Amino acid sequence: MNTRTSADERPPVKIDITPSAAAPVAPTPAREPADAAPAIGRQTGAPITRVMQETAHADVMGGALRHEIKCLDHGFIALIDAMPRLVPVGQTADSAIVQAARVSYGQGTKKISEDRGLIRYLLRHRHTTPFEMVEFKFHVAMPIFIARQWIRHRTANVNEYSGRYSVMPDRFYRPSVDQVRKQSKSNRQGGEELFTNQPDSPQEALTAQEFLNYLSQSEKLYEQYTKLNEKGVSRELARIGLPVSLYTEWYWKCDLHNILRFLSLRMDAHAQMEIRVFAQAMHDLIEPIVPITCEAFRDYEIDSIRLTKLELAALRDKAAGGLGLLASDNKRECEEWEAKKARLGMEH
Amino acid sequence: MNTRTSADERPPVKIDITPSAAAPVAPTPAREPADAAPAIGRQTGAPITRVMQETAHADVMGGALRHEIKCLDHGFIALIDAMPRLVPVGQTADSAIVQAARVSYGQGTKKISEDRGLIRYLLRHRHTTPFEMVEFKFHVAMPIFIARQWIRHRTANVNEYSGRYSVMPDRFYRPSVDQVRKQSKSNRQGGEELFTNQPDSPQEALTAQEFLNYLSQSEKLYEQYTKLNEKGVSRELARIGLPVSLYTEWYWKCDLHNILRFLSLRMDAHAQMEIRVFAQAMHDLIEPIVPITCEAFRDYEIDSIRLTKLELAALRDKAAGGLGLLASDNKRECEEWEAKKARLGMEH
Amino acid sequence: MNTRTSADERPPVKIDITPSAAAPVAPTPAREPADAAPAIGRQTGAPITRVMQETAHADVMGGALRHEIKCLDHGFIALIDAMPRLVPVGQTADSAIVQAARVSYGQGTKKISEDRGLIRYLLRHRHTTPFEMVEFKFHVAMPIFIARQWIRHRTANVNEYSGRYSVMPDRFYRPSVDQVRKQSKSNRQGGEELFTNQPDSPQEALTAQEFLNYLSQSEKLYEQYTKLNEKGVSRELARIGLPVSLYTEWYWKCDLHNILRFLSLRMDAHAQMEIRVFAQAMHDLIEPIVPITCEAFRDYEIDSIRLTKLELAALRDKAAGGLGLLASDNKRECEEWEAKKARLGMEH
Amino acid sequence: MNTRTSADERPPVKIDITPSAAAPVAPTPAREPADAAPAIGRQTGAPITRVMQETAHADVMGGALRHEIKCLDHGFIALIDAMPRLVPVGQTADSAIVQAARVSYGQGTKKISEDRGLIRYLLRHRHTTPFEMVEFKFHVAMPIFIARQWIRHRTANVNEYSGRYSVMPDRFYRPSVDQVRKQSKSNRQGGEELFTNQPDSPQEALTAQEFLNYLSQSEKLYEQYTKLNEKGVSRELARIGLPVSLYTEWYWKCDLHNILRFLSLRMDAHAQMEIRVFAQAMHDLIEPIVPITCEAFRDYEIDSIRLTKLELAALRDKAAGGLGLLASDNKRECEEWEAKKARLGMEH
Repeated sequence: MNTRTSADERPPVKIDITPSAAAPVAPTPAREPADAAPAIGRQTGAPITRVMQETAHADVMGGALRHEIKCLDHGFIALIDAMPRLVPVGQTADSAIVQAARVSYGQGTKKISEDRGLIRYLLRHRHTTPFEMVEFKFHVAMPIFIARQWIRHRTANVNEYSGRYSVMPDRFYRPSVDQVRKQSKSNRQGGEELFTNQPDSPQEALTAQEFLNYLSQSEKLYEQYTKLNEKGVSRELARIGLPVSLYTEWYWKCDLHNILRFLSLRMDAHAQMEIRVFAQAMHDLIEPIVPITCEAFRDYEIDSIRLTKLELAALRDKAAGGLGLLASDNKRECEEWEAKKARLGMEH
Repeated sequence: MNTRTSADERPPVKIDITPSAAAPVAPTPAREPADAAPAIGRQTGAPITRVMQETAHADVMGGALRHEIKCLDHGFIALIDAMPRLVPVGQTADSAIVQAARVSYGQGTKKISEDRGLIRYLLRHRHTTPFEMVEFKFHVAMPIFIARQWIRHRTANVNEYSGRYSVMPDRFYRPSVDQVRKQSKSNRQGGEELFTNQPDSPQEALTAQEFLNYLSQSEKLYEQYTKLNEKGVSRELARIGLPVSLYTEWYWKCDLHNILRFLSLRMDAHAQMEIRVFAQAMHDLIEPIVPITCEAFRDYEIDSIRLTKLELAALRDKAAGGLGLLASDNKRECEEWEAKKARLGMEH
Repeated sequence: MNTRTSADERPPVKIDITPSAAAPVAPTPAREPADAAPAIGRQTGAPITRVMQETAHADVMGGALRHEIKCLDHGFIALIDAMPRLVPVGQTADSAIVQAARVSYGQGTKKISEDRGLIRYLLRHRHTTPFEMVEFKFHVAMPIFIARQWIRHRTANVNEYSGRYSVMPDRFYRPSVDQVRKQSKSNRQGGEELFTNQPDSPQEALTAQEFLNYLSQSEKLYEQYTKLNEKGVSRELARIGLPVSLYTEWYWKCDLHNILRFLSLRMDAHAQMEIRVFAQAMHDLIEPIVPITCEAFRDYEIDSIRLTKLELAALRDKAAGGLGLLASDNKRECEEWEAKKARLGMEH
Repeated sequence: MNTRTSADERPPVKIDITPSAAAPVAPTPAREPADAAPAIGRQTGAPITRVMQETAHADVMGGALRHEIKCLDHGFIALIDAMPRLVPVGQTADSAIVQAARVSYGQGTKKISEDRGLIRYLLRHRHTTPFEMVEFKFHVAMPIFIARQWIRHRTANVNEYSGRYSVMPDRFYRPSVDQVRKQSKSNRQGGEELFTNQPDSPQEALTAQEFLNYLSQSEKLYEQYTKLNEKGVSRELARIGLPVSLYTEWYWKCDLHNILRFLSLRMDAHAQMEIRVFAQAMHDLIEPIVPITCEAFRDYEIDSIRLTKLELAALRDKAAGGLGLLASDNKRECEEWEAKKARLGMEH
C-alpha cells in the first residue's frame, strides 16, 4: 500500500508543526463528575500553559512511518513509533533517560558530555527505572510458535491479529533444507547442529527433506481452511487445524528497560534460533535511536559474565597458590566453570 | 529556566525533519553474542528499509516542550510527551487506537469517518488493549501524601526526586483557611464539609486556624533540616522529620488504558480532594490530544451507572406492577439504590 | 499415577502438624552480604517469634491434592493450591479478604457477622486490593488456541509444558459433529449457531463432517512428528507442523481479583465457547472456597448491567414524560439499548 | 491480642483436616450468565473429582499464625502465610518450584535427590517462572519513608493501613544517638559513617543530638494531630503535618521470584540501612521455608560478581602477559574494577 523507498533515496518530508496544525489546547469547560460531592477546591477550567521548544528538534525516525527488517521467510519486525519521537538536534533518544535520571539522582552533573557516563553508570548499577521512560512500538509478523514464546514477556502492550475476526493469510514458516536442526544431545533445549552438515550421511539429508514434506502437508490444510470458511464454518473453529508454523502479526509496545530484558533472554544462544533472529533485528532497529544505551547494554550485560560464589572462591584459591578447584560435584556446574575459565583467558 | 509563553503568544517552531538530522539508520555490523553457538541462520546486518510518510504530519503537542496546569498551592502537572507524537494533519492521537484495533479486529471498516464509532465500540465493550497503544508522559509536583496514593497505580513508569540524593526544596502544601474539611460522619473516607461553612460557629473557624498553625509548625522543621544537612547529617536521615505535606516530584509515564482507570478512580467523588485536582488536570491535558476517547470515556464510564442484579430485579418488579423493593437488608446498599433511583429519574 | 477417588469415598487424611514436622525456625546465622559496608545497625540473627493458632484450623481443600473438572474432550482444570490454605474451622478463605480490608479500612467493625457485608461493600465499590490477598493455583490442560487467549491475562504466573524440551503428547481437540458452529452474521467474533440445527439441510451436515475430516487430517501429522523426533529432528522444529488444536498444559497461579477479571471476560457470551467452558469450571472450583466473594461477584458484576450516559438521559426523559429516545445514530449502540430495555423490564 | 509463645515452648496444635471440616465441594448448579447466548456445549454442573493426599503432609509454618522478627525501634515483619502451606513430610516449600519446573522442562529427572540440582540450575540460568509458583504473605510495620521505597516494587499485592479511614497510632522511628549517619562524600546515596565514631569531636556528637531533638519536635506534632482529630478535622487532612518517620503498616504478598529481586536490591550495601534491616529479616523468615532456593540465591546472586566486557578483556590481556588495564577513562568504572580485583584475589 505504501511506496517503499530505500534509505538512500528517501524524499524529504515536511512536518507541519505550526500551532494551527496542532490539537487545540483551549481550557476545557468544567465537568461535573457523576455523584459529585460539592466541588470544593476543584480547579476546573484551569489554564494550560505551554512552554515552547527553544531549539530545533528532529524526528528520531527521520520522518519515516516505519523502519523494517525482514526476518525468516515471510516475517518482519518494523519500528513504527518511539517515545521520545522528537529530540533536540544533535541528541538521541538516550536523552530521555538522562532527563528522568536527573530528577531522581539530582541536579549536580548537567553537562551533555556527562550523559554517556551517567547512562553507563545507571545500567551498570541496576538503576532500571530511567530506562522505562523510553518506549518503542513495533509491528511484527512471526510464526505462532514464536509468538507464544514472545508473549511470555508480560510487561508489554499487544494487539494481535485475530483468527476469530479475520481470515488468516496463507503464510507459513518453512526453513530451507540446509537449516533443519538436529536435537542436541547435551542441551535439552535447543538444536544447533544441522542435518546437512553431514555430507557423508545421505540418510540425514533425507530426514531433513522428510521434515519439509511434513511441513508441506500441514500447509496444504490451508486449502480446506479456505473452503470451510466459505461454507460458513465459524472462523474461530475453522482455524484450529492450522499448524503453529502459521504466521500471525501484532503491534507490540514496550519500554526500553523491558526491551533490554527481552533482548538479554532472546538474543541468548539458548533461545530458539527463530526468535533470536527477531531479537537481533529488534536490537538493530533501536540501536540507532538509543546508541549509548545499546553500547552500555553490550558492555555490561550481553558481553559480561557472572562469577558465582563458588567460582570466586576457586579463583581466589588459585591466586593464593591453590589448585583452584570448584567446590561442587555437580557435573553441569563444573562444565560451566570450565567454559568460563576459557573466557577469562585461563588455561584449562 | 525556560521562557514560558502563554498559548496565545507562542512563537512558530521549526522542527528540522530532513533525513540528515535524523539518527543514522545504516545497518549495524553483525555482533557475536557471548558464548554464541554457531550463528546458524542468524540474520545479521540485515538491511533496514524505511517507509516514508506520504502526507504531512503534525506534532500533537504543537511544538511545545510541555503543557502545564498548576495544581494546589505549589504543585503542577505537565504533559511532556505523547506516543504517537506525530499524526497525519487533521487527525488526533486517537488514530493510534484505531490502527491497533484494525490489526486485531480486521480490515473491513476503514473509512476515517468510522473511527469514532470504532473507538466508542471498543470502550463500551471493554476491548482495552488498543488503548494501551497510546502513551503519555507527565512531570508532576505534588505533596508526599498524594504521591503515596498515586503510586498505588502499579502499571506505570516512575522516576521520583530522591531525598537520599538531593536536598528537598522548601515547598509544603497548606490549604487556605476556608478549605479545611471536617470529618464526614456518614462517609469514613472523606471530608467534604468545610469549617468555614458555619459562620455562626466561631469555635469552628478557630479549629481551621489551629490546623493551619499546626501545619506551620511542621513546616518550620525545614530550617533544622537545612542546618542538619549543612552539618553533615546524611540526607536520607535528615529528611525523616519532614511532614508528608512536603512536595515531591516525578516523571510518570503510563498508557492510555491505565490512565483512564486512574482517572476513573481518582476523579471520583470518593477520592481525596487533593488528588482529584490532579486527576482533573490530567484529564484536561489529554483531552485535546485524544478527544474521541475522552468523550467515550465520559459517556460510558464516568457518567454511566451500574445496576446490580438486585437493582435490576427491583426495576423489573416495578415495571411488572410490583413495589420494586430491593431484596437486601443492608442499609448502605439500600441507600445506594435510592441515590441511583434519583439519577434514573424515578420518584423516591 | 495417583489413585483417584470420588468425593464420596475419600479416605480420612492425616496432616502431621506437630512442630517437629515443620521446618525449623531457628534464627539463622548472620550473613555478610558481598561488598558489605560496615553492618551498622543490621539486625542479624534477630530471633523469630512464633504466634501459634489458638483455634482449630481446617484445610480449605479438605486434604485433597487437587479438585478437578474435566473440560472439552481431553482437557481439565484442577485447583491444586490456595492461599489461605488453612482457615479457622467454620470460616472460608473469604476471611483473608476481610483480614486485609480491616488493616486498610480500620478496626471499627469486627464482628464475624459483618464479614459478608464488608466483602460485598468492597466489591461494589471497586476496592480491589483486598481480593488480591487470596491466591489460587491451577493445573490446566487445554488446546493451544485456548492457551493463546488465556495467556493474554498478564497478571498471573505460568509454567507451561515446553515442546522444546519434551515430546508433545498425542491429544487434539475435536468437537463432536453436532457442536460445529457457523460463522455469525451479526457478530464478527463468535459463532453460536450449529450446523446440525438445520435438519432440512443435508448440505450443512455435510459441512460439519468435512470440518471434522479436516481436523482428522491435521491430527494425522502426529505420526510424522513422532517419526521425525525419532530420526533426530530437534523437538523445537519438529512440533511446528502440529495444529493449534493440540493440547498443552500449564500451572497457572493468580490472585482472586485478577481471577474475577478473567472470569468476567471469559464467562461472557462474547468469549469463544471453548474458553467459556474452562472459565465456568474455574468459577465452580473456587466458589466453595470463597463463596461470599463469588456471590457478590455475580450480584455486582456478572449479573449487573451498565447504563451509559446516553441511556440514563433516555430513561430520565421517559420518566419525565418524553419519548425516551437514545441520542445516538449509531445502529449498534441503539440495538444494545433495546436489549438492555428488555432486561430492565421495559416494553419495546 | 494473641498470646505469644516462643518457638521453644509452643504447644501442639491440631488442624482438623477430616473432610467434613472442609468446604463443601458439591457441584454447583448451572448458572446462566447475563445476556447468555444459547449454552452450546457449556459444561455446567460438571462433577468435581478430588484426588486425596496419599502421604502425610505438614504445615510449613508449623501450625503458627505468624513468624515475626522485630525491626528497628517499633517495627516488625511477620510471615503470615505461604503457598504451598502444606507439603509432604520431609520436604520443604522448594518442592513447589520443582513441581512447576517439571511441567516445563520435562519428566526425565524425577528423583527427589535431584531437586536441589534442578533448583540451582534454574536459578543459575535465569529460568525464573518456577520461582513465581511460591507465594509469601507478610505483615509489616515500618516508617513511611521506608514504605515509600518498598512500594516501588510493583509486582506485589498490598493493603496498607489508611490514614484517611483510621487514626494513625503514635509510633515514630528514631535511631539511637550512636546510629546517626553522616553524608557520604564519595557515595551520593548513602551514609555509613557514624557521628559518634569520632570521639575526639564533641561537635559531631552534638550534631547527632541535634538531629534527635529535631525528630523529637516533629513527633510532638502528634499531640496536635490528636486534638485536631477530636475537634472534627478530617483525618485525611489532619495527618498531613506528621513526619515521614511515622510508622505505617501493611499486608504485602509477593511471589518468590520477585521477593528474590527485592532482596537482591534491598539487602545490597547501597540500600538505605533501615530497609536493609527489613530485607535481611524477610530473608531470615523465608529461609527455613525455602532453604534450597535461599542457598542458591546466595551462591549465584548475592555473593556472585559480574565482570563487564571491559573487565573480561583486561583479565584476558593480563593472562596473556599484558598489563591488564581497563580500557576506560571513567574514574568510577576504574575504581569499581579495582574493588573487584581484590575480591578476585588479585593483587592491586
